[in-house]
Amino acid sequence: MAVKNAFYAQSGGPTAVINASACAVIETARAHPDKIGKVFAGRNGIVGALTEDLIDTSLESPADIARLRTTPGAAFGSCRYKLKSIEEHRAQYERLIEVCRAHDIGYFFYNGGNDSMDTAWKVSQLSEKMGHPLICVGVPKTVDNDLPLTDCCPGFGSVAKYVATSIREAGLDVASMARTSTKIFVLEVMGRHAGWITAACGLASGSGADSGQPPHILLFPEVPFDEAAFLARVQQCVDRYDYCTIAVSEGLKTADGKFVSEQGGKDAFGHSQLGGAGQWIAQLIKDKLGHKYHWALADYLQRAARHIASKTDADQAYALGKAAVELAVAGRNAVMPTVQRLADAPYRWEVGVAELKDVANVERKMPADFISADGFHITDKCRAYLAPLIEGEDYPPYRHGLPDYVSLKNIAVPRQLGEFKV
Amino acid sequence: MAVKNAFYAQSGGPTAVINASACAVIETARAHPDKIGKVFAGRNGIVGALTEDLIDTSLESPADIARLRTTPGAAFGSCRYKLKSIEEHRAQYERLIEVCRAHDIGYFFYNGGNDSMDTAWKVSQLSEKMGHPLICVGVPKTVDNDLPLTDCCPGFGSVAKYVATSIREAGLDVASMARTSTKIFVLEVMGRHAGWITAACGLASGSGADSGQPPHILLFPEVPFDEAAFLARVQQCVDRYDYCTIAVSEGLKTADGKFVSEQGGKDAFGHSQLGGAGQWIAQLIKDKLGHKYHWALADYLQRAARHIASKTDADQAYALGKAAVELAVAGRNAVMPTVQRLADAPYRWEVGVAELKDVANVERKMPADFISADGFHITDKCRAYLAPLIEGEDYPPYRHGLPDYVSLKNIAVPRQLGEFKV
Repeated sequence: MAVKNAFYAQSGGPTAVINASACAVIETARAHPDKIGKVFAGRNGIVGALTEDLIDTSLESPADIARLRTTPGAAFGSCRYKLKSIEEHRAQYERLIEVCRAHDIGYFFYNGGNDSMDTAWKVSQLSEKMGHPLICVGVPKTVDNDLPLTDCCPGFGSVAKYVATSIREAGLDVASMARTSTKIFVLEVMGRHAGWITAACGLASGSGADSGQPPHILLFPEVPFDEAAFLARVQQCVDRYDYCTIAVSEGLKTADGKFVSEQGGKDAFGHSQLGGAGQWIAQLIKDKLGHKYHWALADYLQRAARHIASKTDADQAYALGKAAVELAVAGRNAVMPTVQRLADAPYRWEVGVAELKDVANVERKMPADFISADGFHITDKCRAYLAPLIEGEDYPPYRHGLPDYVSLKNIAVPRQLGEFKV
Repeated sequence: MAVKNAFYAQSGGPTAVINASACAVIETARAHPDKIGKVFAGRNGIVGALTEDLIDTSLESPADIARLRTTPGAAFGSCRYKLKSIEEHRAQYERLIEVCRAHDIGYFFYNGGNDSMDTAWKVSQLSEKMGHPLICVGVPKTVDNDLPLTDCCPGFGSVAKYVATSIREAGLDVASMARTSTKIFVLEVMGRHAGWITAACGLASGSGADSGQPPHILLFPEVPFDEAAFLARVQQCVDRYDYCTIAVSEGLKTADGKFVSEQGGKDAFGHSQLGGAGQWIAQLIKDKLGHKYHWALADYLQRAARHIASKTDADQAYALGKAAVELAVAGRNAVMPTVQRLADAPYRWEVGVAELKDVANVERKMPADFISADGFHITDKCRAYLAPLIEGEDYPPYRHGLPDYVSLKNIAVPRQLGEFKV
């Protein structure tokens, strides 16, 4: 293939390290001038491709691109937008190909989670179906850690480090005052269907639930909420330690499969918008046991917390972005680089490759043996899996006391085509 | 005075750096063996003194005491307990003196905020009234930054750094998705009556409200909430920037002086327990303007976040703990060391001294000219005041990917007296 431009887009919720993958894609593309011309980024993800709203990353300095590595958010904008099947929405795919032709795009990098890998897989099939040569490679990213065929997902390790640190710190605070004041602290964390982030909170308690160290109780979306057992455990902690700290997933469900709290509304993919499980749990304890509580809702703070990113995570995000470009220039279509774990301790890993068709729309569940028998904490096996993912600190530069994050110029590529309604 | 033991207690809500003051008190006391014997810490603050539940800090290793400098929470336990006047509750004061006599305590260090400095002042008057020689020195601490006669309060700078960093990071996240998803992000921060912490969020927006950088709007407890003006400003931000980020104080009040949201209940001092202002504001925007929102409640996370402590703050917390002991061994009773600012930029400060009688129960308000004319942001004058307080990083040590905080042995001093009911 002659020199072709590349398209890169960020998709779904941002993470603390998705821009590290962006940095790697652009830096690695620049290192292959014999194969790749310019990297055009979609403004607001795939929507930017459909609307021909492309950002010319060649106009950004090497120094600014390097700073992406330590900047959270999605530097080119992201979106939640899932392409339907080619049969259902042929016009969108024709438009994609039209945009690729107009801008001489031969490489397509899509940086996202489950839904995005489905989109990437569909795009990877276009070359054959629509007669425009296009190599499509997925770059994994999701705080939910639920992509299959990779040991972990870039973005998760940093959230894990943030939530574990936060509940350790808040736990020390609550312990200080428990004798005469607040006895209950609840931290609500993300995780609609899988309890990976909730599990990560468990790392703070060191040698397990019996350590007495926060968090004392974890409430997973995988374990139907048993009010009586839960309240008994809370009271047991208060009796033993004077206080009780709880991490609860936003996706906690009752035995009949309903979310304990729903904000109402649905997102673009039809997922329920959740929130309030933490408050609900805290109020339940107050109502039934009478203990004074505080609760925190980490929300976006957890996935944007680049200031306490995991070095392992940041390194993997960069490595997979780099590998994606290397796979593409080697002519590999419809693949996604992965993390393959070689050993737990000391942790060793290498980059692997998965087929997008095997990744698309498959959600990796947390193994059942990662949750303790009583359903309220993690097992040693889970601990062994999680521990390496939060290893290492990778601080951003600071200026005037605050993390110094880059804002790119994000200059648009001149449009060549007419409008397209998405 | 012959060699006497010292009593040290932590009071009120913990901060990220109150243990740095504890570290300084103990290390400095150990450096004056000619004046100070052992340092006994009150378990759970002043309650520990009343119940004769004293911790013998001489049994802690120098290494563990040194690690207090980077450990959040209150290592000896804290409480909210305000002594009434000597006339009203003479029995408590007599008990305090009895405990001091029994354990040969001649120095009394009380580490806390407004209410605690009132207690310290009362204790400082005991020596004369009750005939037991006792030197009492206050050590300032409060995330609320509302103690008078000191330029700032240890604990505040670290919260300030945390909230400004958090809203900068979450702002990048929201900006990434705003075109097609969440447009509103609300962060609720502490500050019952004074907007210092809310103001600190404003540091993230760099050169001011017109920078377009998060946070776009600050809602102070000092400014009665004007719904129409607020909603107009939110819509203006959405029109201009596609999104709007808001920091709101837990103590936000309507024009008639009522908190916009109350959890109900009151703490030991009769203060209303607040919570929910963030959710209330977010829902208001959704109801009136229809924008999708996310909100976060930092709660204890903000005051426990030692992982992102301000170096300035940690240094001052240590310096004032050290100064307290030096004042005491020099025979100064009824005083509190303070931070005196010498210059804004480059920042220079020195330790000063205030009389406890002038500090007790005086709440320092945020100056009116720190809030912009429209009431929705901070002024350059405020920025000049706040900026140095978040300067510098002072990372704790890490172990297995998490901050490695110390747990002291906290061994009790053998009791010599009978029980006392508090």
